[in-house]
Amino acid sequence: VRERGAVSAAQPQDGGRHRVVIIGSGFGGLFGAKAFQRADVDVTLISRTTHHLFQPLLYQLATGILSEGEIAPSTREILKRQKNVRVTIGDVTEVDLGARTVTSQVLETTTVTPYDSLIVAAGAQTSYFGHDDWAESAPGLKSVDDALEVRSRIFGAFEMAEIEPDPEARAQWLTFVVVGAGPTGVELAGQIAEAARHTLRDNFRSIDPAEARILLLDAADAVLGTFGDRLSGKATKTLRELGIEVELGAKVTGVDFTGVDLLGADGSPRRIGARTTIWAAGVRAADIGRQLADQVGLQVDRAGRLPVQDDLTLPGHPEVFAVGDMVTLKGYPGVSQFAMQGARHAAKTITARLAGKPVPGEFRYRDKGSMATVSRFNAVASIGNRQFAGFIAWLLWLGVHLVYLIGFKNRVSTLVNWAVTFIGNSRSERVVSHQQSVGRIVLNRRRLGPLGTPPSAPGDRTS
Amino acid sequence: VRERGAVSAAQPQDGGRHRVVIIGSGFGGLFGAKAFQRADVDVTLISRTTHHLFQPLLYQLATGILSEGEIAPSTREILKRQKNVRVTIGDVTEVDLGARTVTSQVLETTTVTPYDSLIVAAGAQTSYFGHDDWAESAPGLKSVDDALEVRSRIFGAFEMAEIEPDPEARAQWLTFVVVGAGPTGVELAGQIAEAARHTLRDNFRSIDPAEARILLLDAADAVLGTFGDRLSGKATKTLRELGIEVELGAKVTGVDFTGVDLLGADGSPRRIGARTTIWAAGVRAADIGRQLADQVGLQVDRAGRLPVQDDLTLPGHPEVFAVGDMVTLKGYPGVSQFAMQGARHAAKTITARLAGKPVPGEFRYRDKGSMATVSRFNAVASIGNRQFAGFIAWLLWLGVHLVYLIGFKNRVSTLVNWAVTFIGNSRSERVVSHQQSVGRIVLNRRRLGPLGTPPSAPGDRTS
Repeated sequence: VRERGAVSAAQPQDGGRHRVVIIGSGFGGLFGAKAFQRADVDVTLISRTTHHLFQPLLYQLATGILSEGEIAPSTREILKRQKNVRVTIGDVTEVDLGARTVTSQVLETTTVTPYDSLIVAAGAQTSYFGHDDWAESAPGLKSVDDALEVRSRIFGAFEMAEIEPDPEARAQWLTFVVVGAGPTGVELAGQIAEAARHTLRDNFRSIDPAEARILLLDAADAVLGTFGDRLSGKATKTLRELGIEVELGAKVTGVDFTGVDLLGADGSPRRIGARTTIWAAGVRAADIGRQLADQVGLQVDRAGRLPVQDDLTLPGHPEVFAVGDMVTLKGYPGVSQFAMQGARHAAKTITARLAGKPVPGEFRYRDKGSMATVSRFNAVASIGNRQFAGFIAWLLWLGVHLVYLIGFKNRVSTLVNWAVTFIGNSRSERVVSHQQSVGRIVLNRRRLGPLGTPPSAPGDRTS
Repeated sequence: VRERGAVSAAQPQDGGRHRVVIIGSGFGGLFGAKAFQRADVDVTLISRTTHHLFQPLLYQLATGILSEGEIAPSTREILKRQKNVRVTIGDVTEVDLGARTVTSQVLETTTVTPYDSLIVAAGAQTSYFGHDDWAESAPGLKSVDDALEVRSRIFGAFEMAEIEPDPEARAQWLTFVVVGAGPTGVELAGQIAEAARHTLRDNFRSIDPAEARILLLDAADAVLGTFGDRLSGKATKTLRELGIEVELGAKVTGVDFTGVDLLGADGSPRRIGARTTIWAAGVRAADIGRQLADQVGLQVDRAGRLPVQDDLTLPGHPEVFAVGDMVTLKGYPGVSQFAMQGARHAAKTITARLAGKPVPGEFRYRDKGSMATVSRFNAVASIGNRQFAGFIAWLLWLGVHLVYLIGFKNRVSTLVNWAVTFIGNSRSERVVSHQQSVGRIVLNRRRLGPLGTPPSAPGDRTS
């Protein structure tokens, strides 16, 4: 496929090297940058965070198994040997498709970065389906901050139950509601159960942590719906064996600090008293998607996702690609592989144009399968037409993650912590920091830019 | 020594087992609790945090070497097999020496714990010598939250320098001021230098992190004054070889977000432009000391420390002991050994009384020596009359910490991270969380109780 009318996109506007700007340091952003390793381009990666978050293991940070450094290595450290990449901290406030610039901000420092080609991989955030006020009572699990907040709430709840004299309040502290039975919800509920039944054994004198109630709710009628009936059934069975109350067809109608209101599968309203609720039910694409859509006359979908063309570009802007969780294309799933493959496709297209070679054209997602751990030594995996459940699937999970982790330096400590938790039942990372709190930080965070500071922070008077 | 008039202190007031309450989970509190391992008593350990903080390694959390779980293991996990200990989360708001009760609070849950014997080991906090407003610009290094804040500021400063177009502001972001040249200040300055010169090498494109200025200020005329002239001189030399600007006799007169005002050794005023200032200059005893002093007619000293009797008890209250950083006794130093030995002395006294055996009487501190790491492979150590500097002292430091860490489970990951950092120059724990920020969190933290929540948090309506 030889592309027409896009040649100008390959010409650097200032006569220097072709400038590629990438927004985001997730799977799309990082692997997009890596795909230019041998390309004669200047890459600038702009990200709100200084780390690459390995999101599939976020639940392990939230439940005390791994530390934040283990799942969120420094982006610039990963890319330091790739001399054609510059990593820049910043909250992207504007993409000007006409001027071909990206504006980003930290504190009072504004950076305008011009591009010849742009790859937007800004990801997604938690969606409360129009009930943003629930965020305070029910944190999501999309960022390191979320995970630290959830960790503090889970381990803090047991602390509170231990000293709570009132039986009703104590029962609320010992009840954990996970909303959303996709991989994140399942993994989180499973690990809360493991922590309650195993890790915290013998830790308390007034309560028995094993008596904690863990509920996994979903409005849909299946756990891990995308894995198919057989694996969904196996996962549900394992979760119930762990003592997790799986409630399907349950629609959440309200969340506050002492519980969750819902309509059960039979349509009757109910309230579950719970002091810890975690929201793993929905995602909304990054806001920058809507801004791009407005500029090219597109409409984002209900989840805020940008409908890109089949080569991942924007209509009329062959130099602009969007990939990963923030886009919608042919129903491809919002998984890390979709982001990585999309970013590589974009990089290949850009380098092919520069070399005057045929461009890949249409993007086709190659499903490499999906997996979710349900509990220790138990997972489900769907790879091509083959399905695995139980210990075999868990070994697959372990293998895939080992291979992935080998790509990063210094991941030995991760293996040590896994051995400690999977074999020894212990969790070494369960610090309850004073910075996390019931509602306080979630509220603050929504207003925060990169480095945690509001735009008008006092720290930056002269810049 | 057979004690007189204190027999009543050994009689449990409710006819059950003798109730020991310990306030604090630091070295005093934890090792105090452990000292009752074989005693026929009920121990309640009340602490604001859920972890035992290994404070001598806090600087390693602050500079990206170790994770919070590695230096702050769960107190109740450490003590879980000791069935006569109950661990309780709570901010102690009142000790009533007459009623023999300790009142503690978390959220809206108030707990009143009666005691027959009490060991107060509440530690100390950062002191700004009457300038608490400096806390915002210059965080201390006494808690996990402090260390996470400092970590975010250090690594965040390099990020800001990378994107800062203004040369003056860039220089400020690349200037780090550590106030206080005791062990904490020296170790912190040394590790910032190591991070700038080694860890961050090749990480940036606009700045050279090795050009960072690191200043170590102290109003006294020596670095590590308590280590004696020879070791102090060696440490100063090593620090200067690392490129650290050591300024002695320098009195800080002001701190804000863009720099530090000081009076130099010659009395002339100067300003150092710096966006990162860390305060390691002073400590103030926990506030509960003053409350105890008021009840027995004592005066705390200028650092808020309680002048205990030579057996560590309060006058007229043989059942109440105070130990560690919050007390002053014969000029003994505020080090972990003083707290541990004091708490063990208190425990021995209590169990001797219960057994009707001679009590130890006067507390005598056994100096086991002190050590401080200056940089990678370089430390100073003073043990009895012997002094060590350089690699030998560093090996001693490593040995002592290895022995200590073996006392805790799962510390293999610490060793792995040390190997990674000391041999590989890398730092795997450098996440800049959005919860940390220039000034924001320090401000909030001062108002926070246990679990990070203010007393009137919305999460606790019914308790």
